[in-house]
Amino acid sequence: MTQPESSCEYLPLKEQTWQLLELPSTATISTQLAKRGLWNSFITGATPLNPGLRMVGQAYTLRYIPSRPDIDHNLNFDNRSDPQRIAIEGVGTRDVLVIDARGDERAGTMGNILAARMMARGAVGVVTDGCFRDSPVIAAMGLPAYSRSSHACTNKTVHHPTDVQLPVGCGGVAVYPGDILVGDAEGVVVIPRSMADEVAEAAALQEHKEDFILEQIQSGKPLLGTYPMDESTEAAYKEYCRTHPLPV
Amino acid sequence: MTQPESSCEYLPLKEQTWQLLELPSTATISTQLAKRGLWNSFITGATPLNPGLRMVGQAYTLRYIPSRPDIDHNLNFDNRSDPQRIAIEGVGTRDVLVIDARGDERAGTMGNILAARMMARGAVGVVTDGCFRDSPVIAAMGLPAYSRSSHACTNKTVHHPTDVQLPVGCGGVAVYPGDILVGDAEGVVVIPRSMADEVAEAAALQEHKEDFILEQIQSGKPLLGTYPMDESTEAAYKEYCRTHPLPV
Amino acid sequence: MTQPESSCEYLPLKEQTWQLLELPSTATISTQLAKRGLWNSFITGATPLNPGLRMVGQAYTLRYIPSRPDIDHNLNFDNRSDPQRIAIEGVGTRDVLVIDARGDERAGTMGNILAARMMARGAVGVVTDGCFRDSPVIAAMGLPAYSRSSHACTNKTVHHPTDVQLPVGCGGVAVYPGDILVGDAEGVVVIPRSMADEVAEAAALQEHKEDFILEQIQSGKPLLGTYPMDESTEAAYKEYCRTHPLPV
Amino acid sequence: MTQPESSCEYLPLKEQTWQLLELPSTATISTQLAKRGLWNSFITGATPLNPGLRMVGQAYTLRYIPSRPDIDHNLNFDNRSDPQRIAIEGVGTRDVLVIDARGDERAGTMGNILAARMMARGAVGVVTDGCFRDSPVIAAMGLPAYSRSSHACTNKTVHHPTDVQLPVGCGGVAVYPGDILVGDAEGVVVIPRSMADEVAEAAALQEHKEDFILEQIQSGKPLLGTYPMDESTEAAYKEYCRTHPLPV
Amino acid sequence: MTQPESSCEYLPLKEQTWQLLELPSTATISTQLAKRGLWNSFITGATPLNPGLRMVGQAYTLRYIPSRPDIDHNLNFDNRSDPQRIAIEGVGTRDVLVIDARGDERAGTMGNILAARMMARGAVGVVTDGCFRDSPVIAAMGLPAYSRSSHACTNKTVHHPTDVQLPVGCGGVAVYPGDILVGDAEGVVVIPRSMADEVAEAAALQEHKEDFILEQIQSGKPLLGTYPMDESTEAAYKEYCRTHPLPV
Amino acid sequence: MTQPESSCEYLPLKEQTWQLLELPSTATISTQLAKRGLWNSFITGATPLNPGLRMVGQAYTLRYIPSRPDIDHNLNFDNRSDPQRIAIEGVGTRDVLVIDARGDERAGTMGNILAARMMARGAVGVVTDGCFRDSPVIAAMGLPAYSRSSHACTNKTVHHPTDVQLPVGCGGVAVYPGDILVGDAEGVVVIPRSMADEVAEAAALQEHKEDFILEQIQSGKPLLGTYPMDESTEAAYKEYCRTHPLPV
Repeated sequence: MTQPESSCEYLPLKEQTWQLLELPSTATISTQLAKRGLWNSFITGATPLNPGLRMVGQAYTLRYIPSRPDIDHNLNFDNRSDPQRIAIEGVGTRDVLVIDARGDERAGTMGNILAARMMARGAVGVVTDGCFRDSPVIAAMGLPAYSRSSHACTNKTVHHPTDVQLPVGCGGVAVYPGDILVGDAEGVVVIPRSMADEVAEAAALQEHKEDFILEQIQSGKPLLGTYPMDESTEAAYKEYCRTHPLPV
Repeated sequence: MTQPESSCEYLPLKEQTWQLLELPSTATISTQLAKRGLWNSFITGATPLNPGLRMVGQAYTLRYIPSRPDIDHNLNFDNRSDPQRIAIEGVGTRDVLVIDARGDERAGTMGNILAARMMARGAVGVVTDGCFRDSPVIAAMGLPAYSRSSHACTNKTVHHPTDVQLPVGCGGVAVYPGDILVGDAEGVVVIPRSMADEVAEAAALQEHKEDFILEQIQSGKPLLGTYPMDESTEAAYKEYCRTHPLPV
Repeated sequence: MTQPESSCEYLPLKEQTWQLLELPSTATISTQLAKRGLWNSFITGATPLNPGLRMVGQAYTLRYIPSRPDIDHNLNFDNRSDPQRIAIEGVGTRDVLVIDARGDERAGTMGNILAARMMARGAVGVVTDGCFRDSPVIAAMGLPAYSRSSHACTNKTVHHPTDVQLPVGCGGVAVYPGDILVGDAEGVVVIPRSMADEVAEAAALQEHKEDFILEQIQSGKPLLGTYPMDESTEAAYKEYCRTHPLPV
Repeated sequence: MTQPESSCEYLPLKEQTWQLLELPSTATISTQLAKRGLWNSFITGATPLNPGLRMVGQAYTLRYIPSRPDIDHNLNFDNRSDPQRIAIEGVGTRDVLVIDARGDERAGTMGNILAARMMARGAVGVVTDGCFRDSPVIAAMGLPAYSRSSHACTNKTVHHPTDVQLPVGCGGVAVYPGDILVGDAEGVVVIPRSMADEVAEAAALQEHKEDFILEQIQSGKPLLGTYPMDESTEAAYKEYCRTHPLPV
Repeated sequence: MTQPESSCEYLPLKEQTWQLLELPSTATISTQLAKRGLWNSFITGATPLNPGLRMVGQAYTLRYIPSRPDIDHNLNFDNRSDPQRIAIEGVGTRDVLVIDARGDERAGTMGNILAARMMARGAVGVVTDGCFRDSPVIAAMGLPAYSRSSHACTNKTVHHPTDVQLPVGCGGVAVYPGDILVGDAEGVVVIPRSMADEVAEAAALQEHKEDFILEQIQSGKPLLGTYPMDESTEAAYKEYCRTHPLPV
Repeated sequence: MTQPESSCEYLPLKEQTWQLLELPSTATISTQLAKRGLWNSFITGATPLNPGLRMVGQAYTLRYIPSRPDIDHNLNFDNRSDPQRIAIEGVGTRDVLVIDARGDERAGTMGNILAARMMARGAVGVVTDGCFRDSPVIAAMGLPAYSRSSHACTNKTVHHPTDVQLPVGCGGVAVYPGDILVGDAEGVVVIPRSMADEVAEAAALQEHKEDFILEQIQSGKPLLGTYPMDESTEAAYKEYCRTHPLPV
């Protein structure tokens, strides 16, 4: 198996970045990425098992290819050599396991026991463009988990885990090890690690401003002059900022 | 941009029609449409963000084509010329915004601020064969909203709004401006405006009768003689109508 | 119409099998089937209308082909000759109606009145790779119901019922009359009737063991030695079995 | 296996019908079916292996469901009990084998040896909404064959043959045993047997008229007055009919 | 129906542009568009009926929405009011009819008689993300025609023509009236009219250079130094240009 | 980039294996693989650009993930670091480049210049579950090339090459570096390298036998007794082998 890169090589982020990323919606973050030329940042088709949970973490990647019966259909799972198992024992604090399952919905990619182990290791989420099995149990566990759908069959049915910590595709988006993932009830957005500090700040500020705009609109203001803001609304926003301090 | 037709040109409906359409399920309405030769009346694939809300309104249409970066990727939204913005400020009481997004699920079609503005203007719903962004917020807002799925990215990612109030396709169904849309937890049915008075009445009556039939079946009656009703069941239904007056 | 085979020809099952099948998840059952060479046992794409219900029963099959307007678009439903109606009046205790709808999501396959009749007759569930209509009502009725999505239009829109109790395909899985179906919040697994006694026992035992393993993992144990179990964990499991008696 | 209905029960057709059906395109025939209310008559997705061949025959149906390894993966093909083999030895003069493969393109439905046997028995074509294997050889054999695509794997990979001569679905169209199928380079149209005499005549006449119209258009006439024909063009057509006698 | 814009309003192109666009492949043109930020320029899924023909022209657009039986299923085609017919009689020299069929492959969008009329009027091609009927005849006619697949059924089966000369989507690409379309055996690329002069020149030059590079590679040169060219290869190319004059 | 494994590590094959694999169809080879438990061996959806060519070679793999504009949209192709270019210069005699393009048909994966370079290096084919650009030119070049469809846009449009010579998925099949690929007009079958000697022999023998069976069937023999062969046909086959010597 390809050796995982050490996660300590990741570009360090500002500590505030993690806090700031708790604030904005994935919609707001995707706008900030679009402003920087990244229009394709949202993992299409991945929905939360538990929409009440929020996820902020960094990608730890696991890649699947189609299974082959002679290799995969013995149902022996070797914790020392199976990249899926290595990934589960490889994730740590702030990690989100990202499983490239080629969008194949004909089997699960992992189940509740592995999810429990990930939680015990401090991982903060798991995302796949395939399915989870034991999804009702995972949904109740408190681990943010995003998938295309649910399927009871074991991963080896159609998947063979090949390697960890290589760049992968997930739901049409490139995910590089260490990239930042934010998930809310809408789904998951991928932030290139090198842009995370900047995007976190810009998105938190945009969210703050849009809270104000939403308030204005709900109080009956028209779009014109409010969204985007004209000078007079900008002034009102400045006022608003006195009682609603900026996040950064 | 193509000029919107004035909504005052719409064929007037009986006032009772709006009340009657609150009663039947979309399934019952679709049966009445099938009886009149319209077998394809339900917006396939559109599910409610908030299944607890019911929607009855008339179509205000907005059409999207694929975006082109040189035209669409500046992220400036001009409220005076952008057909999406014109639509939001164009909808009024009883209007349902219907967005033809070509079934493309790779971006949102609008988000929570525009939804809030639509509500402030009296619109009663929004339907698309694409996605909404900020979907968790819209779901909580009380505006009936139906879509294929949710996606955080802004509409300009893959969509370019071209015009409003032209006939469009949505989820495989033709929607003409002014057509009547009814939504429940199952989805959205489209009633050609010219049939709305007749269908509303027939559907309300069918719903009333099926409430009775369901009661009969749940009390142990077989399908034979009950559904469809034979003479004896017809008589029992007449009795039932005394205590459960017909809606019309 | 092809004559239904009498259900009394079914291979008899051990009575404990029905009880045991209440215990394991569909994920656990699918693993036991995979161990016996059946990797494709889960009805891909069928989700529960009501995830809180569990389903254990035997397949009563109904087959649909595409409708043809001259045959199907009169909207007269004859309880004596329409195979859909014959199926509804044919199901009995422990039966699950399995409707092969060719995965077509452009119409319903049945609605709430027929669902009510099935319940009155003792049926324990209904599964289709198409849609239900009146899905919100069925969801509230207490009948486990699994489908690909929901659609308000009547079955005759795109479906023509041809026969009952023939082998069918549903969601990519073969279903033979009398096969055992188990459904939970994840979906539905199909157990060939001839394997049901054996699989029920093995799955209940596996579930019992995995409850223990999950407890171990949640208490901080690593995968290695725990899942799969090494000798020392096996010993701990034996201890656990004293206080948590095996199901069989 | 369900007993095949005897093909001698088919409604007899006028002998001229077979000749007339050699004349019109599938497009013309589908128009005549639409005029009689059948808008969905063309097997969507089935393309000819050999576009140079024309096919006119009656449906002999074969139905596949998903395979199950314990039943289907022994690769023993029993000519006496396997419905696929029974179908091949069941077809005769003027028969077209129609294989309902649920649109599944992950395996073939039959190969060149069975195709050769069908030819030897007088069959005039084979149609499936799945794939053929040995497709290059079949293409060269002279047997009209229509499929969605080609796949080298044997049918048992994903298919299990269940029965013959039951109504089936193929490419979204209902096919009843004895229905008439016409194939050209565009694909295959299904004519309900009871309409075949009438449709054959009307389609041959329409084709004759459209040959004339095409000539007119190619000589520079505008659509208006020509297609559909006005009185003066009708007169010219009458003249044309003197030198180009009507087919019936 | 929405009034067609007069085609004389189109931005004029250099006359050489039409000649230059005969030279490069659609692949080369798409590279030049990508260099200008347009990465999505090729009509995905449209293949030529006749791969031997080349197409260079300007877009004349026609838009379809889903049909509704009460409006569309009478099979009367009025040349004066039906936008499809208006489009056919509206196209002229250098026009390519672009039909937005929503990617729906369940019917044709037009047939051979209309194709013949377009040719008589000087049109140079027709493109749709749906299907053609009479496709074998159109393939033999000499009119470049690109579609997703072929289907015998008349357009009104699932389509209703709404308007002409509005911006449309076709195969995932925006097409504005007057945009330049180039088709070869690979498919169709869309060039925004405002970029056509520049792209035609750049693409013709790139094609010229790549002819040289291909010759080099085929004579055994490695990619390194050749593609892209280093200084020494640039020099050799200059030499080559003496005997192979640049197109512009 | 992940370092390519040296191809000299491949398990050596018998020299006759290469010759024998020229004989059987992909259908016959897939049957031999199914007999050994490998039912999923054919690259679903890959069709030949030039059906007249046959391909026998070993897999050299190249993996693509989704592109990211900031990394991929500069259109500079560095022959020293771009894994696509490294792959092209990495292939040698008997190699078939296998490109995992995630089944994405929205761009090409390579074009004619790279195909020419591969040929110059002795490669014998290229296979992708995506598209080629310049496909008409590649089709004419004589290099066997298999793809899902054709697309003019450059690979960087939606693809980013990540690494070479890792196990990949292609058209739903696992492909390990060094696996043997055989292509004919039907498509491409993947033989695990460790089985190649055995499968080549068995498939060549099966093809020889099926040539005989086909002859028998075409001369009017029924399936029963012929396919599979009974004793008397076996005897006839022995006779046939005298004049048609076994390939091995």
